[in-house]
Amino acid sequence: MFNKRTKIKDLLQLEPASQEVVVMGWVRSFRNNQFIALNDGSTNDTVQVVATLGSFNDDLLKRITTSASLKVTGKIIPSLGKGQKMDLVADTIEILGHSDAEKYPIQLRNKPTLEYLREVAHFRFRTNTFGAVFRVRHALAFAVHKFFNDKGFVYLHTPIITASDAEGAGEMFRVTTLPVDGTAPKDVDGQIDFKEDFFGRSTNLTVSGQLEGELGATALGEIYTFGPTFRAENSNTARHLAEFWMIEPEVAFNDLEDNANLAEEFIHYLIQYVMDNNRNDLEFLAQRLADEEKQLPQDKRSELGLIEKLEFVLNNKFERLTYTEAIDILANSNHNKKKKFQFPITGWGMDLQSEHERYLVEKHFKKPVILTDYPKEIKSFYMRLNDDGKTVAAMDILAPGIGEIVGGSQREERLDVLTERMQQMGVPVDELWWYLDTRRFGTVPHAGFGLGFERMVQFVTGMTNIRDVIPFPRTPKSAEF
Amino acid sequence: MFNKRTKIKDLLQLEPASQEVVVMGWVRSFRNNQFIALNDGSTNDTVQVVATLGSFNDDLLKRITTSASLKVTGKIIPSLGKGQKMDLVADTIEILGHSDAEKYPIQLRNKPTLEYLREVAHFRFRTNTFGAVFRVRHALAFAVHKFFNDKGFVYLHTPIITASDAEGAGEMFRVTTLPVDGTAPKDVDGQIDFKEDFFGRSTNLTVSGQLEGELGATALGEIYTFGPTFRAENSNTARHLAEFWMIEPEVAFNDLEDNANLAEEFIHYLIQYVMDNNRNDLEFLAQRLADEEKQLPQDKRSELGLIEKLEFVLNNKFERLTYTEAIDILANSNHNKKKKFQFPITGWGMDLQSEHERYLVEKHFKKPVILTDYPKEIKSFYMRLNDDGKTVAAMDILAPGIGEIVGGSQREERLDVLTERMQQMGVPVDELWWYLDTRRFGTVPHAGFGLGFERMVQFVTGMTNIRDVIPFPRTPKSAEF
Repeated sequence: MFNKRTKIKDLLQLEPASQEVVVMGWVRSFRNNQFIALNDGSTNDTVQVVATLGSFNDDLLKRITTSASLKVTGKIIPSLGKGQKMDLVADTIEILGHSDAEKYPIQLRNKPTLEYLREVAHFRFRTNTFGAVFRVRHALAFAVHKFFNDKGFVYLHTPIITASDAEGAGEMFRVTTLPVDGTAPKDVDGQIDFKEDFFGRSTNLTVSGQLEGELGATALGEIYTFGPTFRAENSNTARHLAEFWMIEPEVAFNDLEDNANLAEEFIHYLIQYVMDNNRNDLEFLAQRLADEEKQLPQDKRSELGLIEKLEFVLNNKFERLTYTEAIDILANSNHNKKKKFQFPITGWGMDLQSEHERYLVEKHFKKPVILTDYPKEIKSFYMRLNDDGKTVAAMDILAPGIGEIVGGSQREERLDVLTERMQQMGVPVDELWWYLDTRRFGTVPHAGFGLGFERMVQFVTGMTNIRDVIPFPRTPKSAEF
Repeated sequence: MFNKRTKIKDLLQLEPASQEVVVMGWVRSFRNNQFIALNDGSTNDTVQVVATLGSFNDDLLKRITTSASLKVTGKIIPSLGKGQKMDLVADTIEILGHSDAEKYPIQLRNKPTLEYLREVAHFRFRTNTFGAVFRVRHALAFAVHKFFNDKGFVYLHTPIITASDAEGAGEMFRVTTLPVDGTAPKDVDGQIDFKEDFFGRSTNLTVSGQLEGELGATALGEIYTFGPTFRAENSNTARHLAEFWMIEPEVAFNDLEDNANLAEEFIHYLIQYVMDNNRNDLEFLAQRLADEEKQLPQDKRSELGLIEKLEFVLNNKFERLTYTEAIDILANSNHNKKKKFQFPITGWGMDLQSEHERYLVEKHFKKPVILTDYPKEIKSFYMRLNDDGKTVAAMDILAPGIGEIVGGSQREERLDVLTERMQQMGVPVDELWWYLDTRRFGTVPHAGFGLGFERMVQFVTGMTNIRDVIPFPRTPKSAEF
């Protein structure tokens, strides 16, 4: 019954010639008791509905308030006004749902801040900013699947609940059906008896699907994951979420160079896809960012506009260098010599801080950077040991304004080297018997990486707080909606 | 370095004319010390590598065992043998990783059962059956995204960790960083003080993204979710998982009929996509199912083969009828009169059991059925009350051999009716303030449904146990890998 409506995105593509149409949507604004800007979420654009003076009674007109929902029938004609292609001259207007202008949470403030909109996240999808952000997020997610599908990768759903806490990527959330009030059953040693828990053991939320992804890749050849991952870290920053989505491709027979090539091609593809398919939303977001930055001092503003930044990334190869080369550049930089780093460059072996990464990307190279071959001491056990015995075949991709967007490596495929590294780093060899089995039976060189999806959405939309690119952010002390 | 390899799926498309190629993969079999069937996961098909007698030393040949990994260079020529199009005559064979035939878990048994393969799920991807299952699963997942993207839906990532347990869809898992050993902080009443938990409140794993999905749909118009959902139910059956993936579209301005149309079109699309893109895998799975059913008594076998069943579903509209009509059919059936139902048909208002659904689908209509308009007492609070005051605008889609594959409804958009239903059913109105807000401010008719992804994969692959269509099943007392 209702599906005869025309979506506003499609409507605005038509050449207006008095066609009869039905549209439904929410009121964005109502001017002069006559002009309704109606939006249905299919685009940020609105159709101008004209309620001809005298044709509708005052009771109805009073109920046309911001975020009221309407069903309108009428004809589209070339617009007499400026700023739009067509007017929809209403024959009938039906109020589907009214909206009390005094009480509507977003109406209350003239220019709601992003902070405020997080408190009413159930309605922020109705704003231009978040409409654009979440359509772009969708487009990026679809582009992820299309990129890998076109290459013949298999999308593998790795488990969310896991008994393994071996990767050590961060603090984990416990998943349990045991009571937490002290009445959970205990074993003979007085310890909680996790045999009585739902899964018969202690379980957590996954921090990464990589290890299981390797099981898939060493059989199906090329796989990727795209699912939620979790960190129980008490980080209340604009860069951290307790629940976020990650994409982790894993490819048999790839080495580190193949891995970097894949990641660079992937990031280019995602950006190009959004440029081709969401130009309207990007232009809106570019203007939003420019307006936001007008309030910043000149030296804090971006050198490039949002779309110029994306075009720049598309048109330039990522800079590739080793950790060792990066340390040299940083140590010899004027920035370091003038002691402008909070953490001075102490030499080879140190972990790079965010300020160092930003210096390389934003000041020195002025483009995305792929750093490779880090000291083994500061990287994970599963990364392949290089012939120098000191570094591993790791790679991080650093993006302007975002920092680390990709972390990956060629994996250690040699059973003896891997086992020794695990022992050195205190990773439980017994628990990971299944992981080591892939090295026991037909091991192959392979490589993969993880891309933080929200960081990518931030990069493309220009939103500075990660909480503004996921529908309902989960952060310390906050799990609303 | 490694990326010059040709994938076997692509290789087998070539016309062999002595081209030089590099392939890598795992040994499936080695006959006559000469013919290696090599697989790389890109297809179930293998390429026949010929190790010409006398050209390779015995030490090497001895290490060509099942699941050993090889790098082979050589030339492809038209095959002299039957059963394959080409031979790859090896110039060099390099053992990338050996595999001890005595110890390799799958080698140990001649014809490993599906049950046994679940215990070695880290290697089951290397079998023909699971290679086919997981490539089909991938294709279905991609088809889900393509279907909705092409229609302009927005993919919405609804939260996995949720403070709401309002939907009452089932038992939930607790997510916590509090200790479970009795040392968790308590409030003045002696109750666990969840203000001290990570999110400052008691949190669980989601059972459905629907309520948050409605927030998206009533702003963006058309959304869908595709993510993991959880049930902490102690159901050790071939139909239940504690962790499974669900797809939940939600559409503003849709009524129940639109909703049923969308679901039927969606299911047809998914099946057609796999028929078009994974014919090879489907043919393998059809043969597997036929072989499996040979061991069943005649009357337990499927009437149609797997591919015939899928074609039948594609070529026939789903039968649509109301719950009331279904009760009539069941009550008047010979099956009921002869008291063959374990649960007799007691009349209008009773909940349908699996045996009743199967009778309707498999015996009476012999095709998928959409049942609508159930008694309000046996359905959820958010389903729209029909004008009769007795039934709600619910729909279940029942599939042969699987049972319920879709559950959905038009949602109750009227604030007063919804609030009254919530109070009657004991759903906390205060907690769901944000959900009710969508009915307070510009409410619109809308509808949606949930499709259990694993049930769909089962339907298309013919796998009878749900644990065999998800990479690493989570079930009571089991969270291995």
